[in-house]
Amino acid sequence: MATIPSPHNLLTINKNNSIISHSSSPFNTSSSINLPARGLGVGTRALSRTNDASLSAVISRLERERQGLVDETEGDGVICDGVEQWITAEDFRRRDKKAEEERSLRDTWRDIQGEYDWAGLLDPMDPVLRSELIRYGEMAQACYDGFDFDPASRYCGSSRFSRHDFFDSLGMTDSGYEVARYLYATSNINLPNFFSRSRWSKVWSKNANWMGYVAVSDDEATRNRLGRRDIAIAWRGTVTNLEWIADLKDYLKPVSGNNIRCPDPAVKVESGFLDLYTDKDDTCNFSKFSAREQILAEVKHLVELYGDDEDEELSITVTGHSLGGALAVLSAYDVAEMGLNRSRSGKVIPVTVFTYGGPRVGNVRFKERMDELGVKVMRVVNVHDVVPKSPGLFLNESAPHALMKIAEGLPWCYCHVGEELALDHQNSPFLKSSVDLSNAHNLEAMLHLLDGYHGKGERFVLSSGRDPALVNKASDFLKEHFMVPPFWRQDANKGMVRNSEGRWYQAERLRSEDHHSPDIHHHLSQLRILPS
Amino acid sequence: MATIPSPHNLLTINKNNSIISHSSSPFNTSSSINLPARGLGVGTRALSRTNDASLSAVISRLERERQGLVDETEGDGVICDGVEQWITAEDFRRRDKKAEEERSLRDTWRDIQGEYDWAGLLDPMDPVLRSELIRYGEMAQACYDGFDFDPASRYCGSSRFSRHDFFDSLGMTDSGYEVARYLYATSNINLPNFFSRSRWSKVWSKNANWMGYVAVSDDEATRNRLGRRDIAIAWRGTVTNLEWIADLKDYLKPVSGNNIRCPDPAVKVESGFLDLYTDKDDTCNFSKFSAREQILAEVKHLVELYGDDEDEELSITVTGHSLGGALAVLSAYDVAEMGLNRSRSGKVIPVTVFTYGGPRVGNVRFKERMDELGVKVMRVVNVHDVVPKSPGLFLNESAPHALMKIAEGLPWCYCHVGEELALDHQNSPFLKSSVDLSNAHNLEAMLHLLDGYHGKGERFVLSSGRDPALVNKASDFLKEHFMVPPFWRQDANKGMVRNSEGRWYQAERLRSEDHHSPDIHHHLSQLRILPS
Repeated sequence: MATIPSPHNLLTINKNNSIISHSSSPFNTSSSINLPARGLGVGTRALSRTNDASLSAVISRLERERQGLVDETEGDGVICDGVEQWITAEDFRRRDKKAEEERSLRDTWRDIQGEYDWAGLLDPMDPVLRSELIRYGEMAQACYDGFDFDPASRYCGSSRFSRHDFFDSLGMTDSGYEVARYLYATSNINLPNFFSRSRWSKVWSKNANWMGYVAVSDDEATRNRLGRRDIAIAWRGTVTNLEWIADLKDYLKPVSGNNIRCPDPAVKVESGFLDLYTDKDDTCNFSKFSAREQILAEVKHLVELYGDDEDEELSITVTGHSLGGALAVLSAYDVAEMGLNRSRSGKVIPVTVFTYGGPRVGNVRFKERMDELGVKVMRVVNVHDVVPKSPGLFLNESAPHALMKIAEGLPWCYCHVGEELALDHQNSPFLKSSVDLSNAHNLEAMLHLLDGYHGKGERFVLSSGRDPALVNKASDFLKEHFMVPPFWRQDANKGMVRNSEGRWYQAERLRSEDHHSPDIHHHLSQLRILPS
Repeated sequence: MATIPSPHNLLTINKNNSIISHSSSPFNTSSSINLPARGLGVGTRALSRTNDASLSAVISRLERERQGLVDETEGDGVICDGVEQWITAEDFRRRDKKAEEERSLRDTWRDIQGEYDWAGLLDPMDPVLRSELIRYGEMAQACYDGFDFDPASRYCGSSRFSRHDFFDSLGMTDSGYEVARYLYATSNINLPNFFSRSRWSKVWSKNANWMGYVAVSDDEATRNRLGRRDIAIAWRGTVTNLEWIADLKDYLKPVSGNNIRCPDPAVKVESGFLDLYTDKDDTCNFSKFSAREQILAEVKHLVELYGDDEDEELSITVTGHSLGGALAVLSAYDVAEMGLNRSRSGKVIPVTVFTYGGPRVGNVRFKERMDELGVKVMRVVNVHDVVPKSPGLFLNESAPHALMKIAEGLPWCYCHVGEELALDHQNSPFLKSSVDLSNAHNLEAMLHLLDGYHGKGERFVLSSGRDPALVNKASDFLKEHFMVPPFWRQDANKGMVRNSEGRWYQAERLRSEDHHSPDIHHHLSQLRILPS
């Protein structure tokens, strides 16, 4: 058995010349087996901290067993020669690729944001667009990872972290964004399966739920990676529980009915989304302004701050998964309809929406109005997911045009907006192929599918070092032999921590700076939205 | 609103002179309300790290609500005057008490270990004995807190920590002990509901389970706190799942039948306990020696190391909860029967067993033989727990003597050993009074009950700063209004950790030093136990 130190790794090669990783990540050792042909697979990486002989023996045995398994299913064996060289070259290649993509994004960001409706970027899949779709998807995923779902927590329904260390707390230290504002909504609307509530009677808020955030890119990311200052808005949806779909009233309502400015009463959206976006609760510190008021005030503030800088351009990107995708579409429409995507000097700021497993939001007129306003929407979907087929399963944009024209007046005639990127989890060798509705709707799985997507009919090959283990964060979707625990994302001790005296308690979480900033009234009155 | 800094705390007193804690431990603020009369309750302690007005407002509101609640149920209100003085005095009192108990233990440890069968120490409850019972109970609890129960873990059934940092990893930094050896047993015996198994096929061991540890007190604890060098052996049992009871064959078998040295074939114990203690698996690194061989070799080694030191005495204390209590009794018997509790110079080392919710182990002859050997046993039970009533529910030590004599030859005539300390969870104002079998068997709850026990018929008053929140670690036993999450003990991300490259994996856990030490053969052959 020989140990080969490489610039990045310490790997052990056993007698059979197969790799023994000293870390136990299933993907460290198996990925090269899944994807050796293209040289684009997950790298075989490991860090050794021990030379423990018996441990090596155990892992070596495991490794030999796994090879047996893989030989059965794939038949293309393991890497025998040039392991070190392959890894090194691959590492450098990936690093070069990332730098190249960032250079490219700085020049092409308008195209990537959909200025030309992503023409020519989807098939074959443009690598910069793919990594941007993953990046914005991760910003939506952060709304789940940051959310307190635990009914046994006093803070159930809130963000687990302060907005000041939000990305850092989630391990997204190089996000390049800062959270400018948290978004809250009142749960006093009729979507009982969407909102999370604490089992206790004394809680941070009886009726509010944290719904996401408005973030803005920092100077470094703006200059070196993004090519423009980006205002990113992320909406929380639902991870797996799909029952909220049944709660939707499936009833189209004019957006002007909820006092959203709109020149045409024929522009309609699903009433549940509309209520979630516009309702508020005067008795609650967190939802005394509607989500709509919160987001409009913040976007207005940020556009005033950055919109007239001569050295940089500005973009507005709204992202969301599931119901969060519907809110992303609706809020992007509202921002554009309110004219907030114009600087004081009149520069037009591009507004782009990326949704993941998003449902239909409004009617044909809503779609047309989005187009008129120039809001660009890219919808990433898993073809096995039912949510993008809702509401309007029977009467939607795929019906004959003449029928749609006739049905236009009906209150259940929905229409998707923007472009669709259709993925299929049955193409990934990492995922169980069975169609479980929760799995098919899972956001982490969609990001994994994006990572392996190269165009229609192309073979699934992971294009980055993104960890497939993330798929099982809140699902049981990875194939068993990868040995990643299902639903592994959980707080240590359900958030209970011990103080210096040995006493356990639920750490205090909410800070006044996460409340609404004092200038919200000012911005809203300038927008002629006067809070009641 | 005024803030009063005290030597230990920073508390805020609001207009109504009630205490506002800036920490959210329910027991920080409510305990003084539960137990003000005796001045022995959990102290009102809090650390302030923020002067956030809105936060204070929220907590203040919560506090007032809680007072309302307590006023309803207890009627004895809150402390209004002299808060600072009371806390300070109480803190000093507790500190003095602890120092006094340690001084006392150094002088009286033989008595506390049961030299006189705890005569006069139980009613009223001796404070030093109470704190020793809690301390050894916590050493048994560590076998649960350290155990990997998760079937989705590759290490399911093993200890989550290396023996070298076992107590530190559990936050028991001042335990005063070092783990000398881990104990393993093979699960190839017929107790399907006792052993934990991984759902994966490639695991640390297919058939072994970690069963506890042998620890030895360090120099500091030996000299300053214990008054002697203590060899402590802790056995893991079952936290809540009681189905293993049904697996017991309820069949008494001569201990000599499993090659345990015993002069009398009429000495019998339940065959399942015996098998668990003596069975092994040649193909497994961890259980190729039986638990019996592991413990005997280690005790022999430690007695040789410390037994003839002229400056210090030695004790052997075996502790265990539930099935672990049965193994504690059986292994203590074995140690004494093998004569390991004698130093080379002939000094007799006292052997003591503390069990918590332990079942019956053997027959009347077993009990008599324990007495002949001078092994002292104290059994702590919750009167609502069914486990101490098993096996032998119908024919046991409470039957008339004459009947027992007649039934002696029957294979299901069980008998408890030692002294019993009977507690009742319905006496604790912290616990739900309903009799849930799992709750009634819960070890953390028994430790909490010990903490409040002062003698038969005495009022329940907590005697230490021990945190009642610990009860809910692996149960839903605390009353709802304390707002402690049920079953809150859990690993962050099910033990998945992220390496420097952002890849998630199950951290490597087992080390060769946790295997059996090379001298085990030597010790076993000296004991004339030759491993096959």
